[in-house]
Amino acid sequence: MLSLGSGREKESRWSWFPEPTPLDLISLESQSCYRPMHKMKNGCSSQEEQLQVRRLQISDYNKGFIQLLQQLSVCDSVSDEEFNARFQELSSHGDDHVIAVIEDDQTGKIIATGSVFVEKKFLRNCGKVGHIEDVVVDSNARGMKLGQKIIGFLTDHARSAGCYKVILDCSVENKGFYEKCGFKRKEIQMVMYFN
Amino acid sequence: MLSLGSGREKESRWSWFPEPTPLDLISLESQSCYRPMHKMKNGCSSQEEQLQVRRLQISDYNKGFIQLLQQLSVCDSVSDEEFNARFQELSSHGDDHVIAVIEDDQTGKIIATGSVFVEKKFLRNCGKVGHIEDVVVDSNARGMKLGQKIIGFLTDHARSAGCYKVILDCSVENKGFYEKCGFKRKEIQMVMYFN
Repeated sequence: MLSLGSGREKESRWSWFPEPTPLDLISLESQSCYRPMHKMKNGCSSQEEQLQVRRLQISDYNKGFIQLLQQLSVCDSVSDEEFNARFQELSSHGDDHVIAVIEDDQTGKIIATGSVFVEKKFLRNCGKVGHIEDVVVDSNARGMKLGQKIIGFLTDHARSAGCYKVILDCSVENKGFYEKCGFKRKEIQMVMYFN
Repeated sequence: MLSLGSGREKESRWSWFPEPTPLDLISLESQSCYRPMHKMKNGCSSQEEQLQVRRLQISDYNKGFIQLLQQLSVCDSVSDEEFNARFQELSSHGDDHVIAVIEDDQTGKIIATGSVFVEKKFLRNCGKVGHIEDVVVDSNARGMKLGQKIIGFLTDHARSAGCYKVILDCSVENKGFYEKCGFKRKEIQMVMYFN
């Protein structure tokens, strides 16, 4: 399984080799439908062209979006109504909170996602910072650089939104991936859990 | 100078020993007016009681709030109008974005601040995460545990807002402080700057 976000136990955004669990519900019909990426001889769009990043839509609830998040961390009881309410709430922030997805046109399933929200500060002369969260690529869609596509979409959005930087937290083992995406290691993350 | 947030160069939220710079404009009249904390013999409130955490008010622009942020990172050109606009924008988020401050009643200056904003997710069954940012205590107000007061206020707020955890990024050298506040080290922070 490829989880390009938090492992359930580790809560890290990028955990490449988490253990499969009963929550790994997504089973795309065939891995072979994804690779290798190549132009179709009949002039149809290539698989690469098909797998474009777009914003989350409310209909994505029925396309496995929540099941995809389950590969990242606990997310086992989100009803249709809860999804719709949270979707509307986040949508009200417009460009300040964007969730990116990649849909597999062949299966109609969401196979990659990630989000970015824009924090507005007084610091840095009323500057803005993009925060990337909850990046995950379906376990059956590995090796297609979908994670890089998602990260590229999110960083482009943060830049165009006027952010002076974009940040994220990840596990040490995923540092290399983010370096390939143009990130540099900076500080450490501290956490306090509430029970 | 005690900068309990990002050093200007390091962009870290907690940098205990940054170099003084021309931007360190806050000069409280006397350090001795802050310490030691003790009950006043005449029954007046103690200094500890005077130095309470409250939310940022729009009038704090004239109480050195921006100058305090200058001890943390670049913040040298925020006009009254820009401050008011950003204040109103952040206030519109209600409890989802709170900036805490401590004002010194004797000097009328803001001597400590920190912020927390609530990220709303689909993950963790539509869970919420508190993000602490921009914590700084005035260089002349060290040793009074104002940083802990600010952090306590912000974590209490995140808890009461229904967050399942609160996170922050800091430099390695400030790990100990946050551990005293109840945090644990988790992941690493990655950053991409836009020029």
